[in-house]
Amino acid sequence: MSDSRALVSVDDIRAAAERIAATCLRTPVVPLVTADGTVPFLVKAEGLQATGAFKLRGATNAIALLDDDQRRAGVVSHSSGNHAQAVAYAAKVAGVHATIVIPENAPDVKVDATARWGAEIVRVPPEERLQRAEQIASDTGAELIPPYDDARVIAGQGTVGLEIVEQVADLDVVVVPVSGGGLVSGIAAAVKALRPDVRVIAVEPELAGDLAEGWAAGERRVWPVADTQRTVADGLRTDSVGLLNWDHIAAFVDDVVTVSEDEILTAVGTVVRGARLVVEASGAVAAAALLHDRVEVGGGVAVAIASGANIDPEVLARLV
Amino acid sequence: MSDSRALVSVDDIRAAAERIAATCLRTPVVPLVTADGTVPFLVKAEGLQATGAFKLRGATNAIALLDDDQRRAGVVSHSSGNHAQAVAYAAKVAGVHATIVIPENAPDVKVDATARWGAEIVRVPPEERLQRAEQIASDTGAELIPPYDDARVIAGQGTVGLEIVEQVADLDVVVVPVSGGGLVSGIAAAVKALRPDVRVIAVEPELAGDLAEGWAAGERRVWPVADTQRTVADGLRTDSVGLLNWDHIAAFVDDVVTVSEDEILTAVGTVVRGARLVVEASGAVAAAALLHDRVEVGGGVAVAIASGANIDPEVLARLV
Repeated sequence: MSDSRALVSVDDIRAAAERIAATCLRTPVVPLVTADGTVPFLVKAEGLQATGAFKLRGATNAIALLDDDQRRAGVVSHSSGNHAQAVAYAAKVAGVHATIVIPENAPDVKVDATARWGAEIVRVPPEERLQRAEQIASDTGAELIPPYDDARVIAGQGTVGLEIVEQVADLDVVVVPVSGGGLVSGIAAAVKALRPDVRVIAVEPELAGDLAEGWAAGERRVWPVADTQRTVADGLRTDSVGLLNWDHIAAFVDDVVTVSEDEILTAVGTVVRGARLVVEASGAVAAAALLHDRVEVGGGVAVAIASGANIDPEVLARLV
Repeated sequence: MSDSRALVSVDDIRAAAERIAATCLRTPVVPLVTADGTVPFLVKAEGLQATGAFKLRGATNAIALLDDDQRRAGVVSHSSGNHAQAVAYAAKVAGVHATIVIPENAPDVKVDATARWGAEIVRVPPEERLQRAEQIASDTGAELIPPYDDARVIAGQGTVGLEIVEQVADLDVVVVPVSGGGLVSGIAAAVKALRPDVRVIAVEPELAGDLAEGWAAGERRVWPVADTQRTVADGLRTDSVGLLNWDHIAAFVDDVVTVSEDEILTAVGTVVRGARLVVEASGAVAAAALLHDRVEVGGGVAVAIASGANIDPEVLARLV
């Protein structure tokens, strides 16, 4: 761990909670009810955010922290998924111009989902995505809003952890899906500051298990992008966690576990039927880990983060 | 209106809110987002209650009001739907014995959904349902928990209205599905006490439009049960609103409108995709009224109550 990367504090997260309160939903913690009337765990319903995912919290916090010059110059991001929608929506609410760089091969439905919030869309070859976003930032003065490796974003995502601690008095364990690590970084920072006895478990698809491998090795690992693209959990295909995210994970997370593709797909249906929430594959990964005993709960109270709900309706229909 | 039937007050509803706080979820108000990024109205997500419907509020309040003798004797109800599950669940949480009288022709899935909460199930010919429940109450001293025509139940359902007023500052209109009228009675009592300028609109399926007919006529109407059975909204097939419910509706509701079967079924898919909530047909009726301009909103803020989420997964798959 580098001393130069300061960890996000619970005070940072509390400040973020105030900044995002008008834009983001305080999402409920919903019981997952089985057919026989047991409640094996609770589900934090982040898919109910206006853009369908927790990403709105981090983007809203980052944009709220812009100064007047930055606001005039606008924001830029590179993503085709839930972070893109979040930046576009948060910018619209804040009255700030947003440019989103999206790969040419991204499906139109994802482009439309971002464009509907009024963002300017720039389509580029996939390999030029980051470079073009940085160039736009450099040319126009627009502030780059990274998807996870950013203290403002981590603090925003951490508000999920603040809420869970307030909502669930007898909490034992929080189970969090991981891609770049923004969500688990923030949640773990909040939970460990307020309830150090509560365990925080990170979950990845086996097919995008760069963090699980790095966790076992004791150092951050980067996987070939082609490998992480294999998982059905399209929100979790990042090739590694971020640098700042690795530091938070090393400092605060108790364990990292993985789930199979079948387990993820089955969990989508279980969450829809048992918690009455729409959930995308990436959003069902934490539930999958609990449903398949990857996390020791031992009669305690577990909360799975259902991180997003942006699923193709045809896929949803097959999985319910 | 009879002077002998006192209306439920906002203080009754506030007291109910305290009684049910540990058992019932304070459900979120979620934006319904269209494909083009507009938010025509908000959705109050009552399907997220542990039993999948708002009914848990009224049942929990009624059971919390039992005295010690009544608690020992238990409770009885007659229903095969969401009220049965609610009474069974609320009784289990309260440590009270529940007997649920269910018609022999009710599908097993509904019986199982109630039995899983530990209730004693008594199956009888459909026409003997009420009589048997009353007989059990008389024989055992068990307290009958009616589904809607009851001040305790109305006060419990009214907590939905309290929450909406707290959650939505610039509220203009609340749109509520009606069957027996417990939900709309409670919501309207709360909303009109706290925000008399806010309109409360009741919605029925055209095929179970006994209240719409009664509203136009200025007196409560009872439809043949065979007629109300025609609607796909199986939670709204009651032949009339209750007597106490009629009084609340006459006192507090601004208008009654109806929606077609096609409009209800389309609205299920729209709510699932746009608000990321599972919703049953009965729960989509209020959204249907807003989606098809049965309610004048005029740029104001409207909340549709999504009253329940207990939908057959195969039906859900067809409608998303």
